[in-house]
Amino acid sequence: MAWQALISQAGARIAGHVRRTPVAGLDLGGREVALKLEQMQHTGSFKARGAFNTLLQAEVPEAGIVAASGGNHGAAVAYAAAALGHRARIYVPEIAGPAKITLIRAQGADLTVVPGAYAEAAERAAEWQAATGAMQVHPYDAEATVAGQGTVMAEWEEQGLSADTVLIAVGGGGLIAGALGWLEGRRKVVAVEPETSCALHAALRAGGPVDVEVSGVAANALGARRIGEICHGLAQAQGIESVLVPDAAITDAQALLWRDMRQLVEPAGATALAALLCGAYVPEPGERVAVLVCGGNIAPDPLA
Amino acid sequence: MAWQALISQAGARIAGHVRRTPVAGLDLGGREVALKLEQMQHTGSFKARGAFNTLLQAEVPEAGIVAASGGNHGAAVAYAAAALGHRARIYVPEIAGPAKITLIRAQGADLTVVPGAYAEAAERAAEWQAATGAMQVHPYDAEATVAGQGTVMAEWEEQGLSADTVLIAVGGGGLIAGALGWLEGRRKVVAVEPETSCALHAALRAGGPVDVEVSGVAANALGARRIGEICHGLAQAQGIESVLVPDAAITDAQALLWRDMRQLVEPAGATALAALLCGAYVPEPGERVAVLVCGGNIAPDPLA
Repeated sequence: MAWQALISQAGARIAGHVRRTPVAGLDLGGREVALKLEQMQHTGSFKARGAFNTLLQAEVPEAGIVAASGGNHGAAVAYAAAALGHRARIYVPEIAGPAKITLIRAQGADLTVVPGAYAEAAERAAEWQAATGAMQVHPYDAEATVAGQGTVMAEWEEQGLSADTVLIAVGGGGLIAGALGWLEGRRKVVAVEPETSCALHAALRAGGPVDVEVSGVAANALGARRIGEICHGLAQAQGIESVLVPDAAITDAQALLWRDMRQLVEPAGATALAALLCGAYVPEPGERVAVLVCGGNIAPDPLA
Repeated sequence: MAWQALISQAGARIAGHVRRTPVAGLDLGGREVALKLEQMQHTGSFKARGAFNTLLQAEVPEAGIVAASGGNHGAAVAYAAAALGHRARIYVPEIAGPAKITLIRAQGADLTVVPGAYAEAAERAAEWQAATGAMQVHPYDAEATVAGQGTVMAEWEEQGLSADTVLIAVGGGGLIAGALGWLEGRRKVVAVEPETSCALHAALRAGGPVDVEVSGVAANALGARRIGEICHGLAQAQGIESVLVPDAAITDAQALLWRDMRQLVEPAGATALAALLCGAYVPEPGERVAVLVCGGNIAPDPLA
């Protein structure tokens, strides 16, 4: 697959529907870290990019759209569907939590909360798809989704990114797959996962996607039970570095982003930065480092 | 006074000490509003600019620095003093609230909480200055302060600001004075004040600065009892538009910034945007509008 071409096409397709998110610099112990504030995207995460890229090139059936989601993908699909005049049905697991559930409902979608974690919601979405003919938007392991998420990195380069190394949090792998597809090895990419939700790390060790247990503070966004095939393929082919961070480092990174930059993000949004704070990734002297801040849907909602 | 020259000099002086804050676009009912996210500045408001500009050109006495502040100025002075190796003593009124008091203390300053509002804290700071010879940093009505705050607008223009009209919240008037000094009428400036803290509005009606009562949700940042002479002089000379907003519009604007852009700001930081939401300022069709988001030190601290 020619990822760069797909991502360029996606960028042109979704322009005007998604926000060009700002970049900023954070001084971290004397090292300037470049940040991409993608949590400022519509519905608070990068997921709107993949959702629009998927829906804008699809023949959406009468039955509309269905998605399963830990929260952020569901909100993005619901937002994109509403913007494009489609019906949307979203299945979320209980662990999405009230803040994300309220966010999805606010987009006007039909919402069903499913007991359990993401995998149970995915089963229900598949059943709905089979029963009604609704179109499913996969949260991470589909070409259109990955190409949409890849526009984050393309946009960041347009904005003058000068990093040697980019740290990206990984759940199901759609975001990092898009970055790998776009960069094709031109910059080092470091995959950052919570110790307790590390489907990519496990897959790279096992030589292929395997099921993992998921838990921890970022589980509703990063808690995919199995890494996407597209992500695993790109990560293995490019030999990327995969690191793990404890939950305490994630909450430290959340606190730092709020305290120093007044950016309030969810645990998943702070996970890539956590790798620098706890030393899971230690840059060389002079190495220019960038961190993708990917989600801001914190719970509880601070204004609720 | 040649404000543009003073502001250019200030920009060169404080570069490396303050953050170049990002800009972003917000769709507001089909109108693209340009935002400057100055709440991402060090210590969460534009005040760091004036503080550094003042301290970097001063002979700081052995007794160090003293400031009175509703919170944001005190935090900025304390931060700048610590960065430059000076002692700082800050007097804050009770209405600063625990979040801002904690923020100031975190910068390593000696802090005294004074019963009452800003004016009482200012008296105590003046007493300390008289008794010790400490240097006072005025929060808004001093040339170095205004020139420092003016760098926000200079920086925004460097970033490609294309607005016809810029909306700016006003407390004591240091920020808007800097903007007026920089712009010299090249763009329309709209002063936005809470109905219950409107020292500039009152001064423009009275033909000169007068004391006003201050209260409301933004009072700890915008509740100056009397507008600065520098601000009043520039505002009167340029004949700027002055509008008032109710507290409900301010909290609506806070909610909008959080809901749509994941930017969590204090009431003062949302006050300029409030004028667009409640119709206190109604742009012409095609008028390009910009809003300065000036402070993010919300209470209670969402992570405390």
